[in-house]
Amino acid sequence: MALIRSWVASANAPETDFPLNNLPCGVFSRPNAKARCGMAIGDQVLDLAAAEDAGLLTLAGGPYFGGGDWNALMAAGPAVWADLRAQVTVLLAEGSVLQPEVAPHLHEQGAVRLHMPFRVAGYTDFYAGRHHAFNVGSMFRDPANALPPNWLHIPIGYNGRASSVYVSGTAVRRPWGQVKGPDQPLPAFQPSRRFDFELEMGAVVGVASDGPVTVAEADAMIFGYVLLNDWSARDIQAWEYQPLGPFQAKATATTVSPWIVMRAALEPARTNGPTRDVPLLPHLAEPGPMLYDIALEVGLTPEGGAETVISRTNYREMYYSAAQQLAHHTTSGCPMQTGDLLGSGTISGPLRENRGSLLELSWGGKEPLAIGGLTRSFIEDGDTITLRGHAVSDGVRIGFGACAGQLLPALADPYAR
Amino acid sequence: MALIRSWVASANAPETDFPLNNLPCGVFSRPNAKARCGMAIGDQVLDLAAAEDAGLLTLAGGPYFGGGDWNALMAAGPAVWADLRAQVTVLLAEGSVLQPEVAPHLHEQGAVRLHMPFRVAGYTDFYAGRHHAFNVGSMFRDPANALPPNWLHIPIGYNGRASSVYVSGTAVRRPWGQVKGPDQPLPAFQPSRRFDFELEMGAVVGVASDGPVTVAEADAMIFGYVLLNDWSARDIQAWEYQPLGPFQAKATATTVSPWIVMRAALEPARTNGPTRDVPLLPHLAEPGPMLYDIALEVGLTPEGGAETVISRTNYREMYYSAAQQLAHHTTSGCPMQTGDLLGSGTISGPLRENRGSLLELSWGGKEPLAIGGLTRSFIEDGDTITLRGHAVSDGVRIGFGACAGQLLPALADPYAR
Repeated sequence: MALIRSWVASANAPETDFPLNNLPCGVFSRPNAKARCGMAIGDQVLDLAAAEDAGLLTLAGGPYFGGGDWNALMAAGPAVWADLRAQVTVLLAEGSVLQPEVAPHLHEQGAVRLHMPFRVAGYTDFYAGRHHAFNVGSMFRDPANALPPNWLHIPIGYNGRASSVYVSGTAVRRPWGQVKGPDQPLPAFQPSRRFDFELEMGAVVGVASDGPVTVAEADAMIFGYVLLNDWSARDIQAWEYQPLGPFQAKATATTVSPWIVMRAALEPARTNGPTRDVPLLPHLAEPGPMLYDIALEVGLTPEGGAETVISRTNYREMYYSAAQQLAHHTTSGCPMQTGDLLGSGTISGPLRENRGSLLELSWGGKEPLAIGGLTRSFIEDGDTITLRGHAVSDGVRIGFGACAGQLLPALADPYAR
Repeated sequence: MALIRSWVASANAPETDFPLNNLPCGVFSRPNAKARCGMAIGDQVLDLAAAEDAGLLTLAGGPYFGGGDWNALMAAGPAVWADLRAQVTVLLAEGSVLQPEVAPHLHEQGAVRLHMPFRVAGYTDFYAGRHHAFNVGSMFRDPANALPPNWLHIPIGYNGRASSVYVSGTAVRRPWGQVKGPDQPLPAFQPSRRFDFELEMGAVVGVASDGPVTVAEADAMIFGYVLLNDWSARDIQAWEYQPLGPFQAKATATTVSPWIVMRAALEPARTNGPTRDVPLLPHLAEPGPMLYDIALEVGLTPEGGAETVISRTNYREMYYSAAQQLAHHTTSGCPMQTGDLLGSGTISGPLRENRGSLLELSWGGKEPLAIGGLTRSFIEDGDTITLRGHAVSDGVRIGFGACAGQLLPALADPYAR
């Protein structure tokens, strides 16, 4: 679909993440005002609560936008989601007679504060990128048996911690944890020395379910997508993860982009999944193209320094789509809730420069990465990690904005009050 | 502490789980009425919302009890919890002048419906019973290396699924899942054939935290305890759990008792943890007795048949207490929330009859258990599993009521609508 031109001039610029075709969902506040829902348009944000109050926007089951999150709208389902997009498109399209009434409800993005766009009900993280799983398996086992036996048959996932999901811009404190090196006789409690990022996409569940759903049904339940950084303490993980999986290594923080890009905005970027070595069982097979062509990159900015892009990859590298992950998530009868967040798993590509974590980029610290005049094996105090992503179809760019977080040094005494 | 006699006669009976010393917290509804908070007293439940409305109960920051859960009271903290117990004790104590005003707010437990007593924020399950970990490790690895290397140093835990925690009495549907036997070339999607229970206690977090807490601080955050059945599909678990832990095998259901026994009611049953093979690091060491002497049992009732008690054990068998688990849970900076539920891990004891799961009782199905004229390796369709538990101190019994669930047969087609 070609660019839908808007009377908001910045939305028509080729480099914007937020043309009228996008309309991503965020929560913002102005100084001394309550947080409310908004949509990004060019370099502006449209105050949906004000538009609703002014009668410019009327949705079945509303009002939806005066609270501090998108969950009520997400629960309302695809018909209301489509109606929202249609109505806002009319309001903001070039030539709209409503421009004089709508214009007062636009605010410069640079002048507002962005908040977590939704209440996270549950957070599940997957391990569904083949290059990542192969790299990690090669490092910790051997390349001939890099993938676990189940890996080509089910999207391996584990429950994460919903309480530590934060919006972009939230600083992350280097955690303490129990670690033990292979040469140490006993574990020690100390700040993590191998703190890492993981480049992921997150799928946000809109429609709840209470029994097994098909892949097609799962796809229809997904409200939209965010960028997601699954911060990981590798040294804590190495000691704790056997036999029941990662726990405190992944609980410090998960950062998401401030904008949820609705599934409808990504439709033009839909693409097929990979060729499969072994066919999937029918309940996990794709009914059609389930991935998206989304270019992704990771920037690392040392404190006071300039950013270096340390990874470039694409969401289409995934072996399993979010719809397949969500379908698998329900096989046991597990109820899914509005606001559930599904991390894709680290998205690496085939080449070294496509790797989605420092663990892979530095090959476990053995091959430190050169960035400017510095090197990095893992994240250093003060570094900022910034994820970016966008799809381009028919010359129209659909972006997510930045998903950024700075690593603060560990506390000297984590128990001091 | 000796029995506090009540004018509710059934609360003075030696066999009741609910003397005035207990005052456990539940949510109940009468026909055509809204669910509200209540406390069990003998065979009655006291309507706390009505008592609050009538001015019989006045707590700082209230009212608390008209909603459908205990979360607001749980968040209010230990001073309000203590005040609640003190005020209700005065209302219900033998000789209370308020008896005529309180009596109309009592209802027979048999005539009310019990609901989930709290909103589960996050659910975390641990693997902190030594006999269970040894049994499982012996079965799947070997007795000489049964415990993973980290096991004696940290309470191993993993995040579970909060959306599938149900109150006692909720039927559980046998799940479908992907399984692969060691002799099968490819996995299959089919109903679980090795569906099991796990006898656990659950600790309910009252006070939230946003950084690492000590074991003593963690103990003070715990509002109370429930019985917990961590239903487990062993065949699904065997195929899925490497490398990131259990996922769909544990997501069908977790059942908790309808009554939260407040920590204060269990104080007389406090007892020391085990002698340790290796000392714990200081941040996990106990500042005092952190376990409780709580006798536990599991009944199995075939459909239309009589119950057989198939396991008897005690919560004091745990290697790590809930306070230690909660402290460990926060080491990474992970925020804990009001309503977080921490499963202890399966509580087995040293003898065969003390084993807290059928996996252990039947030794992986190799030694089926005789119950009446039947045998069981795992749970059969129609079986009801009932957990019970109580502490006795100074002749006063503090019980939890039953934590029961019946297993329904798998759906013929889980995707039929």
